[in-house]
Amino acid sequence: MRPVALLTDFSHADHYVGVLHAVLEREAPGVTRLDLGHDLDAGDIWGACFALRCAWPHLPDDCVVMAVVDPGVGTERRAVVASIGNRSLVAPDNGLAAAVSEATEAVVLDWRRMGVDEPSKTFHGRDLFAPAAARLARGADVHEFGDETAPGTLAPCPLPESVSTVSGYAGQILHVDRFGNLVTNVRCEGESEIAFATWGTGRTARRVRTYAEAQPDEVVLLEGSAGYLELAVNCGSAAEATGLERGDPVVFSRGEG
Amino acid sequence: MRPVALLTDFSHADHYVGVLHAVLEREAPGVTRLDLGHDLDAGDIWGACFALRCAWPHLPDDCVVMAVVDPGVGTERRAVVASIGNRSLVAPDNGLAAAVSEATEAVVLDWRRMGVDEPSKTFHGRDLFAPAAARLARGADVHEFGDETAPGTLAPCPLPESVSTVSGYAGQILHVDRFGNLVTNVRCEGESEIAFATWGTGRTARRVRTYAEAQPDEVVLLEGSAGYLELAVNCGSAAEATGLERGDPVVFSRGEG
Amino acid sequence: MRPVALLTDFSHADHYVGVLHAVLEREAPGVTRLDLGHDLDAGDIWGACFALRCAWPHLPDDCVVMAVVDPGVGTERRAVVASIGNRSLVAPDNGLAAAVSEATEAVVLDWRRMGVDEPSKTFHGRDLFAPAAARLARGADVHEFGDETAPGTLAPCPLPESVSTVSGYAGQILHVDRFGNLVTNVRCEGESEIAFATWGTGRTARRVRTYAEAQPDEVVLLEGSAGYLELAVNCGSAAEATGLERGDPVVFSRGEG
Repeated sequence: MRPVALLTDFSHADHYVGVLHAVLEREAPGVTRLDLGHDLDAGDIWGACFALRCAWPHLPDDCVVMAVVDPGVGTERRAVVASIGNRSLVAPDNGLAAAVSEATEAVVLDWRRMGVDEPSKTFHGRDLFAPAAARLARGADVHEFGDETAPGTLAPCPLPESVSTVSGYAGQILHVDRFGNLVTNVRCEGESEIAFATWGTGRTARRVRTYAEAQPDEVVLLEGSAGYLELAVNCGSAAEATGLERGDPVVFSRGEG
Repeated sequence: MRPVALLTDFSHADHYVGVLHAVLEREAPGVTRLDLGHDLDAGDIWGACFALRCAWPHLPDDCVVMAVVDPGVGTERRAVVASIGNRSLVAPDNGLAAAVSEATEAVVLDWRRMGVDEPSKTFHGRDLFAPAAARLARGADVHEFGDETAPGTLAPCPLPESVSTVSGYAGQILHVDRFGNLVTNVRCEGESEIAFATWGTGRTARRVRTYAEAQPDEVVLLEGSAGYLELAVNCGSAAEATGLERGDPVVFSRGEG
Repeated sequence: MRPVALLTDFSHADHYVGVLHAVLEREAPGVTRLDLGHDLDAGDIWGACFALRCAWPHLPDDCVVMAVVDPGVGTERRAVVASIGNRSLVAPDNGLAAAVSEATEAVVLDWRRMGVDEPSKTFHGRDLFAPAAARLARGADVHEFGDETAPGTLAPCPLPESVSTVSGYAGQILHVDRFGNLVTNVRCEGESEIAFATWGTGRTARRVRTYAEAQPDEVVLLEGSAGYLELAVNCGSAAEATGLERGDPVVFSRGEG
């Protein structure tokens, strides 16, 4: 069986996450289940896209990923399965299904074709996404679930891309983690010449290779674990030190800055 | 082996949940473990009963459920296994064991009969409930654990039932979820004629089928995923909009309200 | 395969915990994974050592434990595997690796010897500890990962030991749990004569056997589930009642106190 990974904005203090696990185990006994993340901010599609993008390269090759951050549940938004390499991404068509990369194929879930009961109006995770994920885990062909749609018609991912400029990049904060690290949308790969970041009214952080090079309380720019440049404070919070929030602009410069 | 589902008021930031999993794996290597929910409010039997009732229909048919919200640990309260269909519910006899439906059989756990060490005074989850659940998972007969007791002697579940009235129901709020949805104790099944809910000093919510029918910021009444009528605000919090809390009364009316 | 237990200060609301699970499943498909605890206070080595010590006796005998509370990631601190009985503890050498008991053997992880990519500067959990744990789960010999180091060279565990006095012990608060129970560093075993605890300006708690012996709101001293004496209030918070915090001194006395 293929493993199933779950990403939701449900809390473990409600029963919703537990019910998703129960449905998976009920419909695919013995299936390997992975909690990629829960308790994401309610309805926060941006945050879910970010988490999914960071986790994606490390998943088992044939993983079924079930991402349920679904503020539009019960409206006309589509429920889809996007095929990306050997993986399947089961998600609402609200940007999540396009979070990772261009799918090679997408299928719109149709509960009648799937042979499940009519879904509730408020919990498609349980009634539609989990049954689809369980069947994919057991080897079902996604085309049994509904009609294909062109991957290009999927709602776009809300994560902004950085923009190349003469001196570097115009970027933004993508994510503030629980340690207060600020992940930006400038990828590290091939960008070893970026030496400074500036924000607000002229505040600047220099590029370092490791936390050990930072002075106490200094905000530094370094390569983060997800492959993006991050603003960070060694043993401290860059979010507190800078006042920057998700979406705020940051300018990245080569050389002397 | 039968799967084991866990529901507790322990936090993952203490070691208690992890130790329950460790004991299950130690005593029943390879057992399938499901987290139904943790971090419930400390000692909140009502909340645990609600979560258990919502999750119950979706569990694997032969599931062993271990529910540990146990403010009376170390007192004379009994520890029991209730047999309900093919499932076993291992819980303190504080209302939790009666949360779901009338058990066909109940057995009082006796550590001497089980052959385990004398339990600590404060962590029966680890010392009594988890060993019982692990043995049930491996196929043990519950009668090896202690004497039967009449299911009718179990402490009653604290969840209030709604009361039928001439015009509909007198109900109550059962649960406030993290999205601010207010779950009531009026079941949807067969109650399609309920058209209005009123509370406080004459505030009213009309019945809708989906969030899409709601106006911005409108509090509406709709069928919730757990089979109860819910007060909800599309992309908002009904708890904030109404000020209603768990246990507060709500009146449900047919027709024009 | 050996089971793998995880203990981290990552939150499930970031993607970090999920990625550790993904790497374990990717590198050791089907491995049994146990969450011992997450969401520990960020960088709190003391708290992680406490959780590990409490969980340790209940783990499967051949368990691989991966403990990642690693504020020094990216600095010169070593990453190690400590062999303790049949278990392996994979952790940063910051006190965590010495939390449980004297290891019989310790090996320093060397990514070149392990044949993995050069680790990122900020997420050794993903790049070093999880690959090591997955390989140990699959039966690898720890000596393939790097050179041995004398267990005595490991950084010491920060948990303070209690000190024997003429009348009993000079102890400290080791942990405040979510119920407000105060776990001290005086072990219960063989200490049935300890009858009183005093703190602050002469406040006293008497020893009881169970919560049932406590008066309403009374702070009592009793045997906790982890084998340490605890200050507790039945159905209340000893932390609130006493104002005591982690590290605060408590005096334990025999007899009449």
